[in-house]
Amino acid sequence: MKIIRDPAQMQGYAETLRHQGKRIGFVPTMGYLHEGHLSLVREARNKADCVVVSIFVNPTQFAPSEDLDAYPRDFARDEALLKEVGTDVIFYPEAQTMYPEGYQTFVTVENLSKNLCGMSRPTHFRGVATIVTKLFNIVKPHVAVFGQKDFQQLLVIKRMVEDLNFDVEIIGHPTVRERDGLAMSSRNTYLSSEERADALLLKKALDKAKECYEAGVRHAGSLIERAKEVLEQSPRIRIDYLKVCDTQDLQDIDVIEGEAVMAVAVFIGRTRLIDNCVFPGRG
Amino acid sequence: MKIIRDPAQMQGYAETLRHQGKRIGFVPTMGYLHEGHLSLVREARNKADCVVVSIFVNPTQFAPSEDLDAYPRDFARDEALLKEVGTDVIFYPEAQTMYPEGYQTFVTVENLSKNLCGMSRPTHFRGVATIVTKLFNIVKPHVAVFGQKDFQQLLVIKRMVEDLNFDVEIIGHPTVRERDGLAMSSRNTYLSSEERADALLLKKALDKAKECYEAGVRHAGSLIERAKEVLEQSPRIRIDYLKVCDTQDLQDIDVIEGEAVMAVAVFIGRTRLIDNCVFPGRG
Repeated sequence: MKIIRDPAQMQGYAETLRHQGKRIGFVPTMGYLHEGHLSLVREARNKADCVVVSIFVNPTQFAPSEDLDAYPRDFARDEALLKEVGTDVIFYPEAQTMYPEGYQTFVTVENLSKNLCGMSRPTHFRGVATIVTKLFNIVKPHVAVFGQKDFQQLLVIKRMVEDLNFDVEIIGHPTVRERDGLAMSSRNTYLSSEERADALLLKKALDKAKECYEAGVRHAGSLIERAKEVLEQSPRIRIDYLKVCDTQDLQDIDVIEGEAVMAVAVFIGRTRLIDNCVFPGRG
Repeated sequence: MKIIRDPAQMQGYAETLRHQGKRIGFVPTMGYLHEGHLSLVREARNKADCVVVSIFVNPTQFAPSEDLDAYPRDFARDEALLKEVGTDVIFYPEAQTMYPEGYQTFVTVENLSKNLCGMSRPTHFRGVATIVTKLFNIVKPHVAVFGQKDFQQLLVIKRMVEDLNFDVEIIGHPTVRERDGLAMSSRNTYLSSEERADALLLKKALDKAKECYEAGVRHAGSLIERAKEVLEQSPRIRIDYLKVCDTQDLQDIDVIEGEAVMAVAVFIGRTRLIDNCVFPGRG
């Protein structure tokens, strides 16, 4: 397994692989890896000859008030996990080489970035689209794998790839959960044991909504109400948003007809967690 | 010479060329070609095995009030000229395939886009950066050639390529002029014979400034004053801007020390023309 820190070196190696006719699979991460990330790497492994995983805590997707400095990091552990799961290259650049002095170019996906996480994190998806553009240009993947836990991010990336004509296949991979249902996230490490128990309510709230949906409820407001009742079981949970949106354009909807997503973001203490579930529509 | 209209087909052909180890040279244009464009194609010819020229009047770099619809077009003439000069592929997409319904992704180069043409055309360079990103992803060039007449555009593209880690070498090519000094531009075709005579004053104004610079004048204000006197010889010329800027960051400067550019944009009737000259600095 190679570890490459220099973007130009990574780009040169990617070009060499492509000349050899190798198919490059790519998984961009911010490190502090868990089973969710590893399942993305296994998926990339299945789709490509050579798997590149980037580890980069991307400053442009954090607002000044957010947890950039606190974000957990453990490269030695990540390295061991990635080796075990069959990674060929870890691309592990420094912030200074990715955003040198005078840096000023940004990619925005306008409409899809506005709702949900975009409401409380207005520059977040600009940061995501920008770093993914940079990483695609450096790693030159044929295929890239993203988790469906970050549902809006996946839509933003797919839209960007289509709009900017990137020659990259984007694969969305199902959310990986802890045994009790909590969606895996590097940020789960922030939770106290009490908060960890509360965090379960996200999945329970989505399950309750799904149950109502399957019983025939189609009004978004009713589904949101049922899910909200579950979240309100803990006074420590503060809802950032809880919405039902169209899965194409992420606009809020009143009545589910086509495919829809219930997306939720909450603060538990100072930790922000997100989760989602999809309603198939036409059901 | 191939003519390709479909972006996916162009991308597939570019990928085939790269697999064959061919070096791709690229010249993006809006068509209605003149000797300036052809000199860019010859430069690309010298630097690459296969030359792709795109012809696309890019709607996102025009404001609603500007000359998108009036912009001159003559594909048959362009085709003949490009064949003569040794082009391998003309990429000639339709606006509808480049910007389909729901399109929403844009690339911005923030600081460099603000001064000069960015003042009167605030979304122009966003459109330029966006279409060039798209074209780079479709044509996959090793090297791309841009004219120095569009000085700010060249800087914006170079900055974007560096910031977004595009694996493309950018070459700036000297401005090609008519015998009497007028910088070649597809927009010169808009000029009446009276206006065509006035248009000469751009080059004369820059020459006057250059003469003063060479005589030792270093105050931007004095150089601008001398150039302005020349432009004011015609009452039909309306100055959009006439500035001296640092060639790195395009900020206005008072006294020339490092390399600087005098950049000018004027309206003659309804036609907007630009030109520039560079002062070497430290002279």
